[in-house]
Parts: sequence; C-alpha cells; structure tokens
Amino acid sequence: MVMMTRLEQQLSFCTELDKLKGILRQSLLMDASRRENSAEHSWHLAAMAMLLSEYAAAPVDLTRVLKMLLVHDVVEIDAGDTFAYDTVNVETQHAREVKAADRLFGLLPPEQGAKLRALWDEFEERQTPESKYANALDRLQPLLQNFYSGGQSWIKHGVTREQVAERMKAVQIGMPEVWPAVQGIIAAAVEKGMVKG
Amino acid sequence: MVMMTRLEQQLSFCTELDKLKGILRQSLLMDASRRENSAEHSWHLAAMAMLLSEYAAAPVDLTRVLKMLLVHDVVEIDAGDTFAYDTVNVETQHAREVKAADRLFGLLPPEQGAKLRALWDEFEERQTPESKYANALDRLQPLLQNFYSGGQSWIKHGVTREQVAERMKAVQIGMPEVWPAVQGIIAAAVEKGMVKG
Repeated sequence: MVMMTRLEQQLSFCTELDKLKGILRQSLLMDASRRENSAEHSWHLAAMAMLLSEYAAAPVDLTRVLKMLLVHDVVEIDAGDTFAYDTVNVETQHAREVKAADRLFGLLPPEQGAKLRALWDEFEERQTPESKYANALDRLQPLLQNFYSGGQSWIKHGVTREQVAERMKAVQIGMPEVWPAVQGIIAAAVEKGMVKG
Repeated sequence: MVMMTRLEQQLSFCTELDKLKGILRQSLLMDASRRENSAEHSWHLAAMAMLLSEYAAAPVDLTRVLKMLLVHDVVEIDAGDTFAYDTVNVETQHAREVKAADRLFGLLPPEQGAKLRALWDEFEERQTPESKYANALDRLQPLLQNFYSGGQSWIKHGVTREQVAERMKAVQIGMPEVWPAVQGIIAAAVEKGMVKG
C-alpha cells in the first residue's frame, strides 16, 4: 500500500471532484440547449448565496453557507442526481448518498473529511439558519432554470402546481421575503402551461 | 422605462449568470469527454480554495477568496474565455473584460455591483494575499485538468515547458509549498510528450 502525503490526499480529492461535472440534472440551461450538471449548479447556488444573503430568514455565517453549497452535491459523484419528483428513487436516495459520503469524504485527511461530512449532514438536516438558507437557494435556482428554459423539465414529468408549491416551501422557510416572487413565478408557469394547474 | 425593485435587479443578475455555463474553456474534463465551461471551473476553484487554504503563502480571509473565485470569470459572459497561450487575444483581453464588468455588475443595485466589481479588480491585480491565493488556484486547477485529461489542450496548441512553468509562477507565489508538486506534474507532462521539453 502506497502511503500518500496530506497534500497528495487533498489533490486526489480535488481531482475526484471533476466527476461532478458529468452528473446531469433534470433542469436545462436557460437557453434550453442542454441539461445542467451538478458542478455548474453548485457554482450558481454559491454565487446566488453571496448576492441574496440579506433575504435569509435569520442572520447567517456566509462562509459556512458557501462551503455547504460547494459540497452539497458532491455525493452525487457516486449516488447520481435524484430527480425531486421521482418518488421511487427518492426513497433510496439517502442510503445511496450516505454510502457515497463515506467513500468520497474518506479520500481526505480524516479531520478534513470529517469537517466536510459535517457540512453535508448540516445541509441535509435543514435545522440551522445556514442550512435553511442554503436549502432555500437549492429550490429557488431550479425554479429559475425551469421557468426561463420554458418549463420543459416540468412538462416532461407532468409536474403539478401542488408539487412545485410543496417543493418551494423551503424558500418560504429560508427566504420568506422572496416567497411572493416565487408565488408569482409559479402562477406564471401555470398560466403558460408549464405546470399543471 | 420599467423600474425594477432591488430583488428584481438581483434575480435578473442571478439569471444572467446562467450564461457562464455556456462559455467554453480550452481545458477538457479529466475524462476528455468535452471542454470544461467557466461555471464548473469556478465551482472547482472555490471547492479547492476551501480545501487547500493551509497552503496559502499568507493567512487569507477565506470568505473573500470564495467570493472572488465565484465571480472571477463572470466577465466572460460578454468577453468570452481567452486562452492563456493565445498572444493575440491576450492583448485585448483586459479592455474587453473591463467593458463586460461595467455592463454585468451594472445590472445589480449600485452598492452591490460596486462590491463585486472591487472583488474582480482585486483578483485581477494580484496584490492581496487573497488574490495571490485565488490566482494560484486558477493556475493549479487547469494544470490538473490538462494533465489528467491526457494533455490534449497542450498538444493541440504546441505548448512548451517554459510556457507552462511561466504560467505556473502564480502557484510559486501564492502557494509555495505546493510548488514542488507542480514541478513534478510539469516534468511528468514533458516525459509523456504532452508538453514540449
């Protein structure tokens, strides 16, 4: 067994991260040219987090929000992206992702891997102000993607108004001031036939 | 003229950001399946920044580094990506990017746009510890991309060892402890015929 230095372990994890660019989501780019991948989605969320923190329901430590968003989808490298409205795969999602987290964060020096794992757990548990804000962004961004790309992903999967509204509750919790804008987008999506009324 | 609310201006900028996913770089994904885009590149840099900050030449404010990396390529939405070894377009790059920065950051509420613009200027000027560290990462990540994808981008453009070493000086400045690892990768790239010796 080859012993890796601390830096080698870290660079090996950094190299592994490249695979997130190949994980495709159901959302399209806004020009509808192709599906979005989880790496560019994560960038978009982090950039939005720095721009919209004034709307977080409670004051947040932005650094922790950014770190959380940068790693929140890394488990998809092994577990794949699970479509929000796919009831079958959503059931097994957590177990698949926990296994992925064990392997991926295990590539890092132990104390650094444990910190990332704790951030991922925090994101998943949606209890802290940072996690609630991060989860709100993780719902708001796909809403914008789906709406501005013409709703193809919603139409393809026959998504209803109730399903979108239920999914967007995280925005109501984490960014209450943004909720009326979200309601407006949902109403427009129904009116345009993108979402079943 | 329609007056936009503060939130509308911010969401309009967030929507504009989507275009960075369509800006292609010369680097390939590590599986060589396609070219990398500037949005996923920005995510990769930010994730690396949170993992490797112990190697920064001087202590850094990680939040500012992350913000800087999240916005450092946004100007490419208008100005396009300029290949590092393209001597003709590198000459006009700064002027094109300044014009892009004026338009793009101008979409935001003025004080927020000015803050982002200042972060982008700071990144470009490479004077602060945060900027030196961010620029080091902006060189290290493409080195990993090019090396692990088989050096196709280097080979295609006939890049020499001297050109790569010159470009990697930012790593020597911003992350001196990582410099020996970079030298090792350059030597391996020459040995494998990816870079002209």
